[in-house]
Amino acid sequence: MATRPRRTPAATPVAAPVPSPWSDAASRAEQRARKRQAVLQAAAELFNERGFHATSLDDIAARLNVSKPTLYYYVKNKDEILLQCVSQGLEMMLEGIEASRQAGGNAVDQLRACMQVYAGIVTQPFGMCLIRVGDEEVPEPSRTELRRMKSEIDHAFRRLVAQGVEEGSLAPCDPKMSAFVIAGALSWIGRWYQPGGDYTPEQIAQQCIATLCDGVLRRGEAPAVAAASKAPRKSRRSSSAPLAGN
Amino acid sequence: MATRPRRTPAATPVAAPVPSPWSDAASRAEQRARKRQAVLQAAAELFNERGFHATSLDDIAARLNVSKPTLYYYVKNKDEILLQCVSQGLEMMLEGIEASRQAGGNAVDQLRACMQVYAGIVTQPFGMCLIRVGDEEVPEPSRTELRRMKSEIDHAFRRLVAQGVEEGSLAPCDPKMSAFVIAGALSWIGRWYQPGGDYTPEQIAQQCIATLCDGVLRRGEAPAVAAASKAPRKSRRSSSAPLAGN
Repeated sequence: MATRPRRTPAATPVAAPVPSPWSDAASRAEQRARKRQAVLQAAAELFNERGFHATSLDDIAARLNVSKPTLYYYVKNKDEILLQCVSQGLEMMLEGIEASRQAGGNAVDQLRACMQVYAGIVTQPFGMCLIRVGDEEVPEPSRTELRRMKSEIDHAFRRLVAQGVEEGSLAPCDPKMSAFVIAGALSWIGRWYQPGGDYTPEQIAQQCIATLCDGVLRRGEAPAVAAASKAPRKSRRSSSAPLAGN
Repeated sequence: MATRPRRTPAATPVAAPVPSPWSDAASRAEQRARKRQAVLQAAAELFNERGFHATSLDDIAARLNVSKPTLYYYVKNKDEILLQCVSQGLEMMLEGIEASRQAGGNAVDQLRACMQVYAGIVTQPFGMCLIRVGDEEVPEPSRTELRRMKSEIDHAFRRLVAQGVEEGSLAPCDPKMSAFVIAGALSWIGRWYQPGGDYTPEQIAQQCIATLCDGVLRRGEAPAVAAASKAPRKSRRSSSAPLAGN
């Protein structure tokens, strides 16, 4: 047996291994994450369109052209989906606010940047879900955690308002109430905004921020300055076709 | 028989009839209406506290110390209750807005009066329900009718804003967007307000309206006037204890 001639590797090169039809572990994980995110996004869109209770897992599966059992590979149930959607909306807010503050500038610059972030996020599926679906739909203990995150956002706005008052750039006010007015007006965008409507999210953000900063009353004390500051808003005036909101 | 002596009514007066233990028809109808209203109010409070889906007819009955079958004498089902709560909130708004407009004054006076009405109603059970429970929870065809009423309110605000701009008392703006900012900030009160909190509904309304009218920026062009107009808000400043909202 030992003397039997052997074919050397050099003489007959080994054929390349048949490529595996499976992806490697890293790209499998990446694909899974991407698909899970698609499930969450489709769910958020449906919750926003029809309401949380009126949306079934079957509806979500149908929108993604998969079967309901496929969804269970990515998510446990509808409650978990909602929690994930709302948490991602809140995380986007918190990261955006942090980035706006890191960017520096005075309190008013930072406040404007935070308002911009907030207005932008509520026109996107997860942010809109945060506004349209009430906390009470999320079971405990997640509900408490979501409220903690919301409160963090609220306090970031209050701090900026208080700083602005201290700097003298904002009018004396109760920062808590002003933060509620700001959050209310910007959150409301998430209730009435519909993609493809008369205004782009950027136009909406700009106009809401301008109204919150300057107020609706004409600044009669200095008409020239007031007129100048209002001019860009006038030029963005749109048609009077009703927005398809409530 | 004809000659038989008779006791005359004058001699022995007829006894007063035994009083009926039942109320007469008018007060029965009134009592029924009052009880039905109590059912709706208890339901609205529970929907606001726990969410529409988490509230059962048993919960509503328990809060009123009656049995569930008793409720069915006043309402058909939970959907009908919600529809009634939200409709009553909307009717209060529409009547209040109409009264504010009838009261006269210039557009800004009327706008302020309408904002006052709106802010007041969203701190009450039916108005709060209107804000907290989404339209999509109400089945068709009622949903369309509710949206029509909401749109009427929205248009009343837009018309007042447009008039104010024409009068020169409001800054040039897109009335549709300004109406959304106003409605958003005021509606948001219905999301965070809790009876017994740091502020009375009147304080909240005053501060929100002042912020919407004057904006958050300091009116640098005329600091004396700006400071004067802000002073009352400053004096109402409250402690920083967090409001028990989201």
